[in-house]
Amino acid sequence: MSDAYQLILLRHGESEWNAKGLFTGWVDVPLSAKGEGEARRGGELLAESGTLPDVLHTSLLRRAISTANLALDACDRHWIEVRRDWRLNERHYGALQGKNKKQTREEFGDEQFMLWRRSYDTPPPPIEPGSEFAQTDDPRYAGLNAPRTECLKDVVARMLPYWESAIVPDLRAGRTVLVAAHGNSLRALVKHLDGISDAEIAGLDIPTGIPLRYQLDADLRPLTHGGEYLDPEAAKIAAAAVANQGR
Amino acid sequence: MSDAYQLILLRHGESEWNAKGLFTGWVDVPLSAKGEGEARRGGELLAESGTLPDVLHTSLLRRAISTANLALDACDRHWIEVRRDWRLNERHYGALQGKNKKQTREEFGDEQFMLWRRSYDTPPPPIEPGSEFAQTDDPRYAGLNAPRTECLKDVVARMLPYWESAIVPDLRAGRTVLVAAHGNSLRALVKHLDGISDAEIAGLDIPTGIPLRYQLDADLRPLTHGGEYLDPEAAKIAAAAVANQGR
Repeated sequence: MSDAYQLILLRHGESEWNAKGLFTGWVDVPLSAKGEGEARRGGELLAESGTLPDVLHTSLLRRAISTANLALDACDRHWIEVRRDWRLNERHYGALQGKNKKQTREEFGDEQFMLWRRSYDTPPPPIEPGSEFAQTDDPRYAGLNAPRTECLKDVVARMLPYWESAIVPDLRAGRTVLVAAHGNSLRALVKHLDGISDAEIAGLDIPTGIPLRYQLDADLRPLTHGGEYLDPEAAKIAAAAVANQGR
Repeated sequence: MSDAYQLILLRHGESEWNAKGLFTGWVDVPLSAKGEGEARRGGELLAESGTLPDVLHTSLLRRAISTANLALDACDRHWIEVRRDWRLNERHYGALQGKNKKQTREEFGDEQFMLWRRSYDTPPPPIEPGSEFAQTDDPRYAGLNAPRTECLKDVVARMLPYWESAIVPDLRAGRTVLVAAHGNSLRALVKHLDGISDAEIAGLDIPTGIPLRYQLDADLRPLTHGGEYLDPEAAKIAAAAVANQGR
């Protein structure tokens, strides 16, 4: 390996709601059996590539935490330091949380559906506090003025301070960093790393369970634009499937 | 709950080597299926008792880490802060690591066997560096002058600085602390908390997978000597089984 800083991004494996085609956001659903297998395979890829994390950063959501636990166990790195933060959470999907993606598309039409899913700055309607899929009294967000809906721009805005204050110091210390998180919090990070425009980020999908390695130079710029998936063939197939959700 | 400080001790569930009757020590074996079930049950007991941890401390060994992960997932506390330290590891069993307990007893006799298992200050012979069950090049102990064998007195000596510097500050901050660790690192802690003599600690066993709650006063003295098992009946049965190992 080079002297470059080593960063590994890992999107959680399939969750039970991914499998059912529901908008999840901050609802804390578990991995499906398939997702657990993806997580273990992700850990095997880390071991095979010799890219072994020294420190883990996760969101506060079970599907990312379980993915990290399973992957680290599979590559014999279960014992590394752990940091967790809500700033790595999935995008809050507002009032769409708990709704079926296909039904939402049919009810609101293709244009509105794609706007909510992929526009950079249009959040869904905010979730009603106290409603079934809100996180109103969730102790993990106590004392936080938690969002009630988010667009990707909002995720970038709340994720970047964590990148700067928590992840970058670990990289600067020469540690290989694993970030186990979500489709949109990782898209926000990739947008920043690769300097992707607000318009172009809409076309970028990150597949589940396949470690994406970035080697970064002294200015934290990627040596390879877009990083390198540790299983590039599987990544291509999986990214195409993500793009087709709700069809 | 009272104003007392809340501390929960959790010995890992049955490991594959517990099931086989082998001395384990610092060898990093996984939980057995039974041990995974014990861990989940431990988490259910935490939820039922309303004793929900705010922060987790674990050893660097897989069986304690997995136990904590499974228990916290079961009581919806998978998202809490995590700290890990080798000072919570099981006692290093020296040259006995990997050996069958029953065979060791037959080979060396009852007296020597019980001395190694239960005397306060007689460690087994040190393990040979580079041998099969040594941790010679294990990256998690890099930079540490790791022990090659330990008696319980050694465990007390290396565990207490972690108690003082890492666990006590979390308690003082008013947080409910979960310590997921091992038979002997937890015996060392209980010896300190309850003021048990060097002679009397030999008779104390801690069962696997059953949370042991201590409520501590302002001087960190237990309100109830010996704490309270969250499933007292199961704890009695299990402790008797531990005491019979190697018979």
